[in-house]
Amino acid sequence: MRNYIGSRRAANLFSYLDDSIDAVLIVNARMPFLDLNFRYITDIRGGLFESSYAIATPRDVTIITSALEEGIARRSGCRLVVANTAKQMETGLKRMMRGKRVVGLNMSGVSYTTVKYLRKNLKGIVLKDVSKHLTKARIIKDADEIERIGKACKIASKVAEEIPDIVEIGMTEKRAAAEIDYLLKQRGADGLAFDTIAAFGPATALPHYLPGDRRLKRGSTALFDFGANYKNYKSDITRTFFTKPIDKRLERIYGIVAEAQMTAVKSMRPGIRAKKIDLAARNVIEKAGYGKQFFHSTGHGLGISEHDPGILAERSKDVLRENMILTVEPGIYFSGRGGVRIEDDILITGTNGKFLTTANRGLTLI
Amino acid sequence: MRNYIGSRRAANLFSYLDDSIDAVLIVNARMPFLDLNFRYITDIRGGLFESSYAIATPRDVTIITSALEEGIARRSGCRLVVANTAKQMETGLKRMMRGKRVVGLNMSGVSYTTVKYLRKNLKGIVLKDVSKHLTKARIIKDADEIERIGKACKIASKVAEEIPDIVEIGMTEKRAAAEIDYLLKQRGADGLAFDTIAAFGPATALPHYLPGDRRLKRGSTALFDFGANYKNYKSDITRTFFTKPIDKRLERIYGIVAEAQMTAVKSMRPGIRAKKIDLAARNVIEKAGYGKQFFHSTGHGLGISEHDPGILAERSKDVLRENMILTVEPGIYFSGRGGVRIEDDILITGTNGKFLTTANRGLTLI
Repeated sequence: MRNYIGSRRAANLFSYLDDSIDAVLIVNARMPFLDLNFRYITDIRGGLFESSYAIATPRDVTIITSALEEGIARRSGCRLVVANTAKQMETGLKRMMRGKRVVGLNMSGVSYTTVKYLRKNLKGIVLKDVSKHLTKARIIKDADEIERIGKACKIASKVAEEIPDIVEIGMTEKRAAAEIDYLLKQRGADGLAFDTIAAFGPATALPHYLPGDRRLKRGSTALFDFGANYKNYKSDITRTFFTKPIDKRLERIYGIVAEAQMTAVKSMRPGIRAKKIDLAARNVIEKAGYGKQFFHSTGHGLGISEHDPGILAERSKDVLRENMILTVEPGIYFSGRGGVRIEDDILITGTNGKFLTTANRGLTLI
Repeated sequence: MRNYIGSRRAANLFSYLDDSIDAVLIVNARMPFLDLNFRYITDIRGGLFESSYAIATPRDVTIITSALEEGIARRSGCRLVVANTAKQMETGLKRMMRGKRVVGLNMSGVSYTTVKYLRKNLKGIVLKDVSKHLTKARIIKDADEIERIGKACKIASKVAEEIPDIVEIGMTEKRAAAEIDYLLKQRGADGLAFDTIAAFGPATALPHYLPGDRRLKRGSTALFDFGANYKNYKSDITRTFFTKPIDKRLERIYGIVAEAQMTAVKSMRPGIRAKKIDLAARNVIEKAGYGKQFFHSTGHGLGISEHDPGILAERSKDVLRENMILTVEPGIYFSGRGGVRIEDDILITGTNGKFLTTANRGLTLI
C-alpha cells in the first residue's frame, strides 16, 4: 500500500462511512465553489484545480484534472488522470466509477446542477450524501494537521506580539494591515488565512470590518484579527490594543472579555458539549451586563478552512473530542464607539484545552 | 425609487430575465461556498455574510443576515432584515417570499442540500434556475465595475514596474511574493486578488505554482502572477523577468509569447467569438512549434472574481461584447526547465480591446 497523506485521509474518511460506500467523489467546481474537501483528501498545495475531481477509495485517492494543474497534482502522491476537455473529464470519471455501486457525494458542497449532471452520466450508481461524514472526518485533526495549524499559530502569535513595534499613532488601518501581512510572510506564512482585519476607534465595533483609510488616534483602541496560512492550514488570532489616554470604559470591557475567554478555555475538555463552552463565556459577559453586546458565537473550528467544522454556539450540537482545534473569541461591541475581542486557537488534548496561540493576552499599549 | 448600487445591479439582472420571475434569491452559504453573486447584487464590502440571503426584485435588494454583519450590511444601501437564528432566518425568508410565485435561484452555486431545504420551506413557489442569466448580467461590466477594475489594474501595473527594484538575486520566492503583496497595499489595494504566484527557474513551468524557499539564481527567469483587490474588484497580471546571463532559448520563447498575446489582443472587438481570440494566440505559438507547451486557455473574465464569467478557449461559446473585461495570458512551459507567460487585462470598447494593465511588456531584466 502506498503511503501518502491523501491515502491516510481517505482511510480516515472511510472509517466514518458504512460499508455500502464504494468510493467518495469530491467535485471541485469553478471558482468560487472550490470544495475544501478536495484539498483535504488530496493534500495538494497550490493550484486552483477548477473543474476537477478527487475520488477516494479506502486506500487511495485519484485526482482527475487538466494539464494546467498536472505538475502540482503530481507532488501530492495521489494517483492522477489528466483530462483536458469536458469530454475527457467525463470519460475519466466514468472509467473511475466502473464497478462502483454506491458513491458518496458532499451534497452540501456540490451544486444542484452538478448533481443533475452526475445522475445523468453515472446511471446505475447510487449517489449518497456523505457531507456529515466528511465533517466528522475533518473535525478531528490528524498529526500532520495539528503540526501545521500549530505552526500557523506560532507565526500569528509572533506577529501579534510585534504589533506594538509596527503600528503607530497616525497610521491608517490599511497600512497597519499591510505591515501585519508582510510580517506574517516574513515569519514563515505561505500566505494569509484570510483578509486581515485592522480596525481603529469606532470601527472596532464591527466584527468583520475591512481596513480603510482611518488613522489611529490617541485614545483609540485598535483591533487586529488575522491569521497565517501554513501548508494549507490556518490560524486565527485577534488582539485589541489600547493607546494613551486609555479609554477607561473599554479598559473595563477588556477585563470582562479576557475573563470570559479564560473561563471558556478552562472549561474545555473531551466529552463536554460545545454549547457549554459558549455558555461559559456568555455567562461572564451577561453577568457584567453586556449580553446584547456579544452578538456572535464564541468560536469555530479551525483547519484547512478558517471556518472549519465545529462551532461554539448556543445552537451547537457538537461535543468536544481530543484533537479538535477551535477558536475562542468572545467580544463586546458598542456601535459607533468601539469594541474589544480577544481570540485564541485551542487544541483539545486528552484532558483540557491547550493554547496554540501564545501571544500576550494582557492589556497592551501601542 | 431609492438609488444604490444594489438596486442598479438588480435592475440589470432583471433585464436578462423573463417576466415570470418575481424575485431572485441568492444564497450565501457557509464557507467556502460563498456565492459571489451575493456580493455582486448587494455591493457589500467586507464581512463574510455566511448563511445569509439576498433577495433581488426589479428595483430593490434585501439582505437577510445576522447581527454580526449588520453594521457592514447597512453601508450597502440595501434593505436589511436582521435574523440571528436559523428559525429567524427561515421566518424572514418566508416573509420576503410572500406573494411570489416564481423565484430565480443560481442552481450552479447553491448546494443540493439547500435546494432541498428551500423546496420544503417555500412550498407553492416555483424555483427556476437563473444561473445563466446571472452569468450574462455579470459578464458585461457596468460603469462602477469598470472604474474599480481599472483602478485595480493601475495598482497592479505600478507594482509590476517596480518589481526589478524590489526583487534581487538570492531572494526567495516567498520573500519576493511578500514584497509584491506589501507594495500592492502601499499602492492602494484593499487586499490581494488571489495568492501571489512568484516562481523562479524551473518553477516558472508550473502555471499555478505556490511560492517556496527557492532562491533566484543568476541566469534564471522569474515569473510573477498577481493582482489587486479594489472595492471587491480584481486585476490579474503576469510578467516574466530575466536575469543575466539571459537564457537564449527562453528569450526566443518570450518573443513568441509576446507576439501571441499582441495578436490576440489586436483581434479583440465586439461581435467576435471568444474562441477566435484563443485561436489567434494559439496559432502564433503552434506555428513556432510550441502548441503542446501552451496547455491552458488564453484568458478568462475578470471582475468581482479573479475568474469571472467569460473564457477565451477553444470550447468557448462566448461572443465578445462592449464592456467585457478579460485577461489575455498565453504561455509556453517546459517541464523541469521553465516557462514564460505574459498576462494583461483587456476592456472591450466599442471598437477594440484596450489594455487596462499598462506595465511594460518588453523583455526586462532584474
